[in-house]
Amino acid sequence: MRIVTLEQYTKEKEQQTAVQTTNFEFDRTVLGIIETVREDGDQALRSFTEQFDGVWLDNLIVTPEEFAEARTLITGQFLSALRKAKQNITAFHEVQKEQSWFINQEKGIVLGQKVTPLDSVGIYVPGGKAAYPSTVLMNAIPAKIAGVGRIAMVTPPQADGKVNPHVLVAAQEAGVDIVYKIGGAQAIAALAYGTETVKKVVKITGPGNAFVARAKKWVFGDVAIDMIAGPSEICVVADNSAVPVFVAADLLSQAEHDERATAVCVTTSQSFAEALQKEVIKQTEQADRKGIIEVSIADNGRIILVESLEEAYDFVNKLAPEHLQLMVENPMEQLPFIHNAGAIFLGNYSPEALGDYMAGPNHTLPTSGTSAFSSPLGVYDFMKKSSIIQYTEQALQEVAEDIITIANAEGLTAHANSIQVRKADLNAE
Amino acid sequence: MRIVTLEQYTKEKEQQTAVQTTNFEFDRTVLGIIETVREDGDQALRSFTEQFDGVWLDNLIVTPEEFAEARTLITGQFLSALRKAKQNITAFHEVQKEQSWFINQEKGIVLGQKVTPLDSVGIYVPGGKAAYPSTVLMNAIPAKIAGVGRIAMVTPPQADGKVNPHVLVAAQEAGVDIVYKIGGAQAIAALAYGTETVKKVVKITGPGNAFVARAKKWVFGDVAIDMIAGPSEICVVADNSAVPVFVAADLLSQAEHDERATAVCVTTSQSFAEALQKEVIKQTEQADRKGIIEVSIADNGRIILVESLEEAYDFVNKLAPEHLQLMVENPMEQLPFIHNAGAIFLGNYSPEALGDYMAGPNHTLPTSGTSAFSSPLGVYDFMKKSSIIQYTEQALQEVAEDIITIANAEGLTAHANSIQVRKADLNAE
Repeated sequence: MRIVTLEQYTKEKEQQTAVQTTNFEFDRTVLGIIETVREDGDQALRSFTEQFDGVWLDNLIVTPEEFAEARTLITGQFLSALRKAKQNITAFHEVQKEQSWFINQEKGIVLGQKVTPLDSVGIYVPGGKAAYPSTVLMNAIPAKIAGVGRIAMVTPPQADGKVNPHVLVAAQEAGVDIVYKIGGAQAIAALAYGTETVKKVVKITGPGNAFVARAKKWVFGDVAIDMIAGPSEICVVADNSAVPVFVAADLLSQAEHDERATAVCVTTSQSFAEALQKEVIKQTEQADRKGIIEVSIADNGRIILVESLEEAYDFVNKLAPEHLQLMVENPMEQLPFIHNAGAIFLGNYSPEALGDYMAGPNHTLPTSGTSAFSSPLGVYDFMKKSSIIQYTEQALQEVAEDIITIANAEGLTAHANSIQVRKADLNAE
Repeated sequence: MRIVTLEQYTKEKEQQTAVQTTNFEFDRTVLGIIETVREDGDQALRSFTEQFDGVWLDNLIVTPEEFAEARTLITGQFLSALRKAKQNITAFHEVQKEQSWFINQEKGIVLGQKVTPLDSVGIYVPGGKAAYPSTVLMNAIPAKIAGVGRIAMVTPPQADGKVNPHVLVAAQEAGVDIVYKIGGAQAIAALAYGTETVKKVVKITGPGNAFVARAKKWVFGDVAIDMIAGPSEICVVADNSAVPVFVAADLLSQAEHDERATAVCVTTSQSFAEALQKEVIKQTEQADRKGIIEVSIADNGRIILVESLEEAYDFVNKLAPEHLQLMVENPMEQLPFIHNAGAIFLGNYSPEALGDYMAGPNHTLPTSGTSAFSSPLGVYDFMKKSSIIQYTEQALQEVAEDIITIANAEGLTAHANSIQVRKADLNAE
């Protein structure tokens, strides 16, 4: 892992900026899949599943027998850990639940916002070689707490036509209502527009590959989406109080996700940087997913030397990392300096993996700099608001002239008239 | 305005469904504009402004002299009405401001969410022939309350190179920091990616034409956007307590916006339906924007007869209208039956125009059925959250095995290792 100055790193990053508006040909492919699903429904889902997942499925829905079988394939230890995680995730997210509110003003005015759960959501869970039961919990539990009426899940089948048992058990434990064995852009299209088998939902959440991410961007507007997830990042800010063994392990835990994952450490200490560099080499040698880690670290892993913690925080706020670990003295006191980060982990005993699985806050976080404007997935993503406005005759009378003045200034005279007809009525009384 | 049954209306609507994935050729045009601005910066902005707005501007920024001139061109009555509106909008939105929160758990655990204002936002305000000072207030005030650092506004210039004085005064009153005379997809591109003159922002809000809406969809992900605004709708639910003159005026106030606007009334009363139909004809004759209203009403205006209020609410929830007026007896008691609506106006003296300008709740609402999954614009749109996680040695020790179990089930052994290295450390102590 190369040690670089902030200036060097900034220059390097500038050359890599990707934007949403590129890659029109890839869009054509994704759109082709979506349009085919809209036209051919289940038939298209079966064909794409055969093409991309290597299996033909007559039945796209996971059966009660498959759920029962999954229970026999997991350990008691796993189930116990999963339930502990569910408990913590539930406790944290229950705090987030918003309530409807009203204010009463003079003359009988009532204003407020009604908070309502979404009717239905679809959760995308990646599959194939990988299996992410934690992703199931992190998406389904907030939806359940919000009170969503119907929670559907889609996940690509394995080559044998089955779904990973850990994922199925997690779906049942979290209260998912139905699981479809579909993945990719075709699954997003099915959730957005419906097919004979798949009932349309109003929002789609969950991570996926490039096809899934792009399909979500396309259907956005017809349904809601959580976010457009890019490759994952971690940024560790370390001073001399940080432990190189810990920081190296945390950077590698991010790097093992994906060759495109980013793991950087910003430090004020040259000696720490050198110790960390050695430790990264050592731990990489021992890692199971060494191949992925080596590419990720070589391409995107850097140790960045800065002059001061102020400079480090300024860098963090520009980077807006998904995961930020503050491994410095008195980390809680540094919080006011952090503006942009998906999740902030404080101190030596709060590694990212704790947040990924167990602590309770959501692990679905804004990636690729989007924490500058997005939040972690939460209960608020599964509810929406309606404004409430009730005026009385007297209350409307008092503001009638002001409304007419602004409406006329905007040239919207039928707006003005809708007040005028009521004014006439009031004056006649 | 035709009187139809619910069955007839439903059939008619089904044939009109538009989706986000169509119109690839229009996308090519919009993308062409965005890419040109990314490459050529200010030069592109000036060319597009000449092409679309008919004026060449050396200076794209509204000057202090132009602001001062605007003040001389508005009436005292308008300024007074604008300030009254600002006061009401401010009062309502201040209630929405969320606070950071923390919970302390056993063994020194701290969990929470830090709420932070966005660094910068760009507000799009339509221009040209129309002028919407109310839109300026509805976008800028929540941003200001959130604590956004820099509020930029873009609006297309008139053919004389100026901006409507009502809009400029509203911008100043609401605390906008800078106003650029740019519109269309080129303005969205400038805000998303920056040019020599226009500083990049992290979120873009505000309504616009088809070019603006589509450009926002494209840049979404690189920046945040509020929503993809479509044509505006009103749905009035009326029983015999509703006043035909009022309902007709409210339907027309929606219809005058745009030929594509939708104004429907759902009623249980045949006699009310007939009285309303006559009143719509009468008021349309007298309307200034008669041409637009006639097209809108003919294409999308309908009076829908239903058997019961239950049937009416079921229809409303499927339609998910932007504006809903409940002009029935005891409207507040009907609220539990409404799941999907942008804003709900209760009773005979709460017309949509009251909400558009004066009551306080935001008039930027989810259109075209998107209130099924979206909320009115609010202070929450200008702030974002970061999760906070702090564990101690002891707290981590207790969950270490559970985390390792789940990480291994997901095949992410470097995640497991990041816990293992800390466990070893703990056991050694």
